[in-house]
Amino acid sequence: MTRGRFISLEGGEGAGKSTLLAGLREYIEQQGIDLVQTREPGGTALGEAVRSIVLDPAHRGLSGESELLLMFAARAQLVREVIEPALAAGRWVLCDRFTDASYAYQGGGRGQPVARIQALEQWATEGLRPDLTLLLDLPVATGRARAAGRGEADRIEVEADAFFERVRASYRQRAAQEPDRFRIVDASQSIEAVLRASLAAIAPLFEVSP
Amino acid sequence: MTRGRFISLEGGEGAGKSTLLAGLREYIEQQGIDLVQTREPGGTALGEAVRSIVLDPAHRGLSGESELLLMFAARAQLVREVIEPALAAGRWVLCDRFTDASYAYQGGGRGQPVARIQALEQWATEGLRPDLTLLLDLPVATGRARAAGRGEADRIEVEADAFFERVRASYRQRAAQEPDRFRIVDASQSIEAVLRASLAAIAPLFEVSP
Repeated sequence: MTRGRFISLEGGEGAGKSTLLAGLREYIEQQGIDLVQTREPGGTALGEAVRSIVLDPAHRGLSGESELLLMFAARAQLVREVIEPALAAGRWVLCDRFTDASYAYQGGGRGQPVARIQALEQWATEGLRPDLTLLLDLPVATGRARAAGRGEADRIEVEADAFFERVRASYRQRAAQEPDRFRIVDASQSIEAVLRASLAAIAPLFEVSP
Repeated sequence: MTRGRFISLEGGEGAGKSTLLAGLREYIEQQGIDLVQTREPGGTALGEAVRSIVLDPAHRGLSGESELLLMFAARAQLVREVIEPALAAGRWVLCDRFTDASYAYQGGGRGQPVARIQALEQWATEGLRPDLTLLLDLPVATGRARAAGRGEADRIEVEADAFFERVRASYRQRAAQEPDRFRIVDASQSIEAVLRASLAAIAPLFEVSP
């Protein structure tokens, strides 16, 4: 059985991830591919519990170390319970955020050293990386303006612009370091143009592997 | 300011930890010492949230890796928010379970390799260890019989006897490896005898440091 493909979608607030996820899913399934869509943190009972904790403004005093350990607890569960079994069964996985988000948010955003995140990544997921990562990139101000009307801000959304600038810089730096895996999509374009660019980026994954 | 002393209490189900904690607390405070009593997992908002997750039978599918990451997420928070500030201020800390419990339950009980737990301990708490650890030791059957009447079993309590035998063996092995830090107390004795033995064990901590 051919192992499935693993695609992750990354990007800051208001980048249009949800809309793009729906479009990608529809297209991939139209190709007759059995797709599992999931998200981080989330995707399992533990992941959703962790999501509630990290987004809850009541946990404002959460240390950077604890936040990172929580994210990897959720990720370790998602990999073992959902992602690895799906890929092994030949299904494709489309994940709304994955480990790159820890480097961007807990690393770039909160200043946890990259080497410490790498150590935890190795410990928790043995360094599992997506086959392809789409980075929806756009200026922080644009993204925040788009996300502004969505109701009460969660524990991450209340951060200052400087935090999100560091997150964006960290994402772009990772994309530059791993050009074979990352595709940067200009998320300031129209929804249709973002979808078109994303479909072009994932096209090589549909070629039958030798 | 003299740094405070850090005492942890370890032991399996029905060992009498709660009763002993109350007795120790009363005695230590009678000596005019400012004491912080806490527990694991727990002691902080995050710790209590993690406690709910790991004890909830709904999370039966929790992987060994995720359980360990969760416990260390809670522990990292407890150390930074409660334990270190208290010790630095000269207060004493009495903690119902600490890192040894991860070696006993997730290591001995669930088979996570010791080296992997050590790596996580170093990552999360820089290897912080109590000054003294009291291990309330008793046969598994005795402990389980005592704990039996306490209402519905949680996700840990439903484990088989073999699990708790491994937990006990792991605790005893750790005590043998660190004889300067551990004191084993025979928990099959009467409440009064257990308290007497424990007070004798912690007596050296009250000597004024040079």
